[in-house]
Order: sequence, then structure tokens, then C-alpha cells
Amino acid sequence: MIVAVCANAAVDVTYTVPQLHVGEAHRVTEVHTRAGGKGVNVARVLHQLGEPVVLCGFAGGAGGAVIDADLAASGLDHRLTPVAGDSRRAVAVVAGGEATVFNEAGPTVTSDEWRRLVAEVADACLGADVLVLSGSLPPGAPVTGYAQLVELARRLGLLSVVDADGDVLGAALAAAPDVVKPNEAEAATALGRPVRSRTDAREAGLHLQRLGAQASVVSRGADGLVAVRDGESIEARLDRRVEGNPTGAGDALVAALARGLGAGATWRELLCDGVAVSAAAVAEPVAGGFDTALAAALRPHVELEEF
Amino acid sequence: MIVAVCANAAVDVTYTVPQLHVGEAHRVTEVHTRAGGKGVNVARVLHQLGEPVVLCGFAGGAGGAVIDADLAASGLDHRLTPVAGDSRRAVAVVAGGEATVFNEAGPTVTSDEWRRLVAEVADACLGADVLVLSGSLPPGAPVTGYAQLVELARRLGLLSVVDADGDVLGAALAAAPDVVKPNEAEAATALGRPVRSRTDAREAGLHLQRLGAQASVVSRGADGLVAVRDGESIEARLDRRVEGNPTGAGDALVAALARGLGAGATWRELLCDGVAVSAAAVAEPVAGGFDTALAAALRPHVELEEF
Repeated sequence: MIVAVCANAAVDVTYTVPQLHVGEAHRVTEVHTRAGGKGVNVARVLHQLGEPVVLCGFAGGAGGAVIDADLAASGLDHRLTPVAGDSRRAVAVVAGGEATVFNEAGPTVTSDEWRRLVAEVADACLGADVLVLSGSLPPGAPVTGYAQLVELARRLGLLSVVDADGDVLGAALAAAPDVVKPNEAEAATALGRPVRSRTDAREAGLHLQRLGAQASVVSRGADGLVAVRDGESIEARLDRRVEGNPTGAGDALVAALARGLGAGATWRELLCDGVAVSAAAVAEPVAGGFDTALAAALRPHVELEEF
Repeated sequence: MIVAVCANAAVDVTYTVPQLHVGEAHRVTEVHTRAGGKGVNVARVLHQLGEPVVLCGFAGGAGGAVIDADLAASGLDHRLTPVAGDSRRAVAVVAGGEATVFNEAGPTVTSDEWRRLVAEVADACLGADVLVLSGSLPPGAPVTGYAQLVELARRLGLLSVVDADGDVLGAALAAAPDVVKPNEAEAATALGRPVRSRTDAREAGLHLQRLGAQASVVSRGADGLVAVRDGESIEARLDRRVEGNPTGAGDALVAALARGLGAGATWRELLCDGVAVSAAAVAEPVAGGFDTALAAALRPHVELEEF
């Protein structure tokens, strides 16, 4: 069983407009609303993979009610910690297949609310195998928030996967998470210089290991991923391209990695699964899902190379 | 007393972002939420003018609760008709002083809900002098909705002001409203050709009169307005420019016209008031307010010309 944390859960709103012109007024032709945030996407993919998952996170106000209702409708086991503020919205304006996204920061959480979330996560972790921590922390949460939860996971005998950025990722590394999964931009921030090639990604992975991560997987979009563990660097990528919406592909990768870790898959198996599921998520129009048949079809087309 | 109808009331959300790049993700640095919609703006300006006003409109779901709470906080007398759907949002993304706006269509109202709104408006009209109908109708409302309400106003002895567009304006004209207030674009739609000059605006005004309006006031932004009534055409404009945010300037004009009609002001007086209050609304950063001192200072600078 996997516990997915989405501390900064959101109401994901998608607006469809015929064209987007800066400085003008637009009639929105379609509105879609659902629970979102990276941790929610991870939980949805795990659920679709048939993996038992519990989602933890903050929810408050009218936005929190929308999140709660949508998760219930999706059949996702969720334990939301109430917060006084209103849960944030993330508005994606889609015009001609291109998405322009506006992310609210989210409600400021108090130290009491943060402690209640940690207690809820601890409770959910009993009987689970892997703890996944995805996305940003809400304003007010301690920068060491993921470090605390990684430490909690270790004490309770769980493996941990962290998908975070900047200072929160930096602080989490000190707690030695089992896997960190930055994308190229996040890896570049951690490394202090651009990550544009697989050797850059390996450098970033080695750097993250020196800072404390047991293993790192740098996702590189259509170029697959670079995994660094025990001094070994592996590139995993498809022998073909999948067209579609890359939003949520990183979350699908995290879900596949977490499932593999929990199931005791070999490192190479779970990297292959990760690339296949992630690519199959690109084929889905919305984040948090993947094309099951496509994932199975792509699995034999993942190529691993040690370098 | 004035009754302002905002059938398609909205939650107005303003996002501040440092820059807006189409196709990219943005962190929203500031979020402001308030009740909005043209009728709400009109009611706010009337309230600021010291004119007793009752606001009627639909409100439903989480958005409706936000609208209700914000109107109460503003001290606006409001009688919202419940609707099963969720009240719409209008998201304005402001970057570098430029606003890009996304308007949701709003909840679809049933014929029962529409009848309940009409009954609520009828009740509010008892003891009032002027009925103001501003903005779009929600999906599901009859295209003759404003026509019904103009007819209702007449039977109850009220004057009516209509600020609408397209088919809804067209249908309303048949009910002979006392004043219609299109902007140039709306006037052009009604006329069937562009309105770019004061003579174009006069043509549009005469056309609207032929279709049933007792009088028309075409607002022309910084170029003031062109009023047509009893075969007389008047241009009213400031002898100077006011810089700022023109959103809501038309609503401020409608409010000033309605107040003047209710108070029995002369046609020329109320046109001068309208231009001054409208220009003073441009100086305010948000729609639904105006700079009181500026309106008073600008009033002697409004120039009228019959042409």
C-alpha cells in the first residue's frame, strides 16, 4: 500500500477558449473542474494501476469541498486534513491545444494544521510500504516539511519518494529519501547550472546523491530519464515518440516508481515501468491518468543504457 | 430607489502575475475575489452615490455563497434568487497593468428559476423609481428576459434602463425601454455596421429608437457619449482625458443615468453627471467604484454639443 501526500491540493480548473489574446476578454466555451495537484495525480495513477493508495493533504473552504467531493467520486481513498483557508485553484486556459496555467499559492497553514497533517500521514503509513511526497508545500508549512515526513517514513519502515523543488527538495535530501524525482529544470536548480543532456542529468543525480538522496531519477520529457544509484547511471527511454499532453507525465513516473519500490521490483524493471507509464500518460488529455493498453504496448520499447 | 438586476452575477477573481506568457505556467502573486457582474458594478456605484438600491440576481453553489458574503460585506441590499448551478467566475489576469479576462458562461437556469427571479424583481420594484438591467443573461434564461422585465417595470410605474447586447438587447427594444446604453461595439452589432464616429453613434441611436427605445446613450470610452432622444442628438464629453482602468466605466455611466432619471434631473444634467461619474470610475483600479472627489471636480468640464 502506498501513501501519497498532496500537501497543496488544488481545484484544477480547465477553461477552453477558441484563441488566447493577451489583453482581451474571452468567453470560456468549456469549464472542467476536478481535484488536482501533483500528489493527487500520483494517487490517481496508482489507483488506475490497481495499487492500494491513500491520499493525504490539506483541504479547506469552498475549494476543499470541491476537492473532497471529486476524490470521493473518483473512488480514491483520501484523508484530508482541514485547513482554515480556502484551497487553491489552478486555472489552465487551453487554446488550440496549448495550455497557459495560473497557479494560486494556496492557503497559509498554521503550525497546528501542519502537525495535524503529519499525524494523519503517520496514521495512514501504518501498514503501508511507500510514502510519496509530491509538489509544493503550502505557504506557512515548514521548509523542512518533506524532511520530517521522510524521517517519519523511515521510522515506520516505509520507503520514500520525493518529487519537490528548490529549498523543500534541498531540505528533504538531508533526510536521505530513497528516491528523488526532479525534472530537468528542478535538477538544474539543485545543481546550479543548466541540465540539457543526459550527462548533465547524471551530474545532477550524483550531486543529489552527495546531498543525501539514496537514488535519483531525473525526468527528461520525451528524452526519457536518467537514473543514478550506487554509482551506476542508467538512461531509460522509448525508441519512439508519444504525442499528447505532457502535464502529469512526471507524476505518472513517480507513481510507477513507487509501485515498483513497494512491490520489490528490480531497479531496472521499475525504470522501464516508469518510462512506459509516463509515456502512456502523455497520450491522456488530462493529468492523473494514463492509457493502460498503450503502457503495456510501450513497455517492450523502453531501452536501457548504462553510461 | 433603484432596482439593479444582475442576472448573471459572477465571482470576479483578479490574478496578478509578473508577466503573462501564452503556453507557460505562472505563479499567481496576488488573488483578489469579489462579487462582480455589470449589475453588481451598477449597484455599487449607486450605493457610493448615496442612492438607495436593491440588487437582484441569481446565485448558486459555492460561487453563490462567495457573492452573497461579499455583497453583505459591502453593505449592499441584495435579494439573490437561488439557482441549482454554481455561479460563474470571471477571471482577470493582470500583468503589467494589462488585463486578460476569462468569462465563464454561468449556470443554466430553469424556467422555474427564471420565474422566481422575475417575482423577486417585481417585489423589489414596489416603491422603486427605476429598474436597471445590466449585462448578459445566464444560459437557459429566455432571450425575451429583459423585455419581460421592462414591461414589468412599466406596469409598476418604474422607468427602465437597459445595458445589453445582441439578441437580448434586440428583444428588449420591442418593450420600449426608457433608455438603452450600448457601447460602440454593441451599437455596431445592433446597427449592422461599425460605429467609429459620433455620427455613426447617432445613426445607431436613431436605429435603436426606431426599434423601440425611448432614448439611447452610446458610450464611446474616452470620447464620451452620444445621446439620442426626441429627435435630438447630443454629444457629451470631457475637455480632458482621465487615465486608468476603463472596466466598469460603462456601468458607472448607467448608474448615473438611472439616478438622474429617478431624481427627475433634466436630460442634459444627467448626461453631464454620467460623463463625470464614468470618467471618475476610470481613475479607480477596480470596476464598481469611482473617485467621488474627481467626479465632482470633472463635472464642470463636461461639454455638451447638439449636432
